[in-house]
Amino acid sequence: METEKKLKEIGLKILDDIKNGRNPSIEIPVRTLSNIYFDEKFRLIKLGDKIAKRTYLNTAHSRKFMQTLLIAAEAKKIIEQNVTISIRDLYYALKHTIGDTKENTFEEQNESDPIIEDIEAALNVLREQLHLTADRKGYLAGNVLINDSGDIIDCSKMGSSGWAIPSNVEPEVIKFMEINADFVLVVEKDAVWQRLNEDKFWKKQNCILMTGKGQPARGARRLINRLHREFNLPIYVLADADPWGYYMYSVIKQGSINLSFLSDRLGTPDAKYIGLTTSDINKFDISKNVTIKLDENDKKRVKEILNYVWFKPKPWQMELKNMLKTECKLELEALSSKGIKFISDVYLPQKIANKEFLP
Amino acid sequence: METEKKLKEIGLKILDDIKNGRNPSIEIPVRTLSNIYFDEKFRLIKLGDKIAKRTYLNTAHSRKFMQTLLIAAEAKKIIEQNVTISIRDLYYALKHTIGDTKENTFEEQNESDPIIEDIEAALNVLREQLHLTADRKGYLAGNVLINDSGDIIDCSKMGSSGWAIPSNVEPEVIKFMEINADFVLVVEKDAVWQRLNEDKFWKKQNCILMTGKGQPARGARRLINRLHREFNLPIYVLADADPWGYYMYSVIKQGSINLSFLSDRLGTPDAKYIGLTTSDINKFDISKNVTIKLDENDKKRVKEILNYVWFKPKPWQMELKNMLKTECKLELEALSSKGIKFISDVYLPQKIANKEFLP
Repeated sequence: METEKKLKEIGLKILDDIKNGRNPSIEIPVRTLSNIYFDEKFRLIKLGDKIAKRTYLNTAHSRKFMQTLLIAAEAKKIIEQNVTISIRDLYYALKHTIGDTKENTFEEQNESDPIIEDIEAALNVLREQLHLTADRKGYLAGNVLINDSGDIIDCSKMGSSGWAIPSNVEPEVIKFMEINADFVLVVEKDAVWQRLNEDKFWKKQNCILMTGKGQPARGARRLINRLHREFNLPIYVLADADPWGYYMYSVIKQGSINLSFLSDRLGTPDAKYIGLTTSDINKFDISKNVTIKLDENDKKRVKEILNYVWFKPKPWQMELKNMLKTECKLELEALSSKGIKFISDVYLPQKIANKEFLP
Repeated sequence: METEKKLKEIGLKILDDIKNGRNPSIEIPVRTLSNIYFDEKFRLIKLGDKIAKRTYLNTAHSRKFMQTLLIAAEAKKIIEQNVTISIRDLYYALKHTIGDTKENTFEEQNESDPIIEDIEAALNVLREQLHLTADRKGYLAGNVLINDSGDIIDCSKMGSSGWAIPSNVEPEVIKFMEINADFVLVVEKDAVWQRLNEDKFWKKQNCILMTGKGQPARGARRLINRLHREFNLPIYVLADADPWGYYMYSVIKQGSINLSFLSDRLGTPDAKYIGLTTSDINKFDISKNVTIKLDENDKKRVKEILNYVWFKPKPWQMELKNMLKTECKLELEALSSKGIKFISDVYLPQKIANKEFLP
């Protein structure tokens, strides 16, 4: 069903409640940890089936009930107008004082953001389908021909910039016209992306070179998901050898707790981890000078990650224990100590040729 | 003189010092506040002519002396290899333990970054000419045809993304082939850029639409500077009505204290401020609900800015005093409370038609 219809049904259902003397209500999936599980079959973090009723005639609910209806109505309006707005715009567009009271509809954006996610989860639609955008970041280069709203963009001819990954990469906006690549390399850092792009790594290895600039935004994660699903492209992730890099990888792979209701569209369970790892230090003879000592916060995080069910595979357990044993982490840039082009000429080609991946 | 030659001369001069029994030294402009002034004629923040000698046989200097030579030598090397690296790569590439000592060449990147700026100032070259890159951000759309390293990029056909502004926009890398525009609109926020891009604002108003995504990085500031100097395009800046938005504008216009030695290449004194301002609240009948109360930190900052020589023109003094009087600030998204397209259909066209700018 179309998003617009789904939004309309919320309103019709409320009208029906009122006409029949029922307490108006909206059903919303529970998004707390208690309703989240790791789906072993699909290898994704998923949302369970607990549902909460948000009702009008309940002082604990009525503010959120009002906010939910306001946002649903505004989403319907912008879809009809065929415009896209940011989640901050939405907050400002809806913020006003109610009648003669001193009560505002919303006080801060952190009141409206979770309700957008509620509506996404309740209707099983993406924020992008509600015509809402958020932060975008990340770039891509490679033999990919894209049709974006009628403009044809050749990602192999984007110079030093690459194609900027937009907030909304749903098929209605971003159409892949042609792809010629053997795999997708997702790099954590833009600086490393720029290095690899300058070395024409994507041309030499016939791949798509992407960066999410740190933890990828939803647009970048959805793009990885689409490239894998629609074109069967292997996904290799290159991140810092530290608990944050590993966690970033896991979010690309299994989805996140926060957006568990979207894991099937944002997660890519077949993604593989190409590096860095602490075992690379010996394997590639990296100087101790360019490693960084784990601090207490790092150690705590590594121990947490050790217990995550999706880090249970043996190679990950070995790597995480090795990190604790050697008490060090290292950043991608540390490879520069072996020479500026070491990463493009030696490190990555060797890992790809020998399929040296973590699961 | 070419950058490479300038770097070589540092080395030759040191050699000459040694051969002639002099204490080896490098002359570096003093970059502290004591050597910075506002140039009334050029309307730019400039670096004075105080020079400091960094010498080898001086225990207070010798570590920095060593670091300066290491970075100069590495810059020469990467220029010769015709590669570009990030300032973080540079730090890692040079970090090592010296001989049998326990002394490292660099401990943290905050030791190498200022020395890069020292070399820029000493040689009067841009970091980009040293083949060093840093963070990039920002996007551009409009009738601009660019040649980036042989790739032809049409910024009027970049769909929802826009052209991603690279770190290095020097004429050696980014060549403007054709420009058809009446002015450049620089927008503080990417969300607002996306809104205006979706409304095809740049097409309707025949302008170049840019965002620096917050405080513009060097690449974006240099691009504004080039578009104004080389094509005589007026620059209009659209930012939040708060002390940070106003300061951001002043950095685009007059340059910054930190990079005062680059003001003539990064600053654009003819830039004009199109909005927001607190006087827009009455002018456009904006609801009080969407304004934000100034906190103590904001007030302190407004009072500081009131005293900056480049905010002395009367319209700015009036605006800043009005902000203190009304005790409120507002964000660009606040305009959405007047309707999603209010900014593209009413606010900006009216300001441009009536030339309602702050100097």
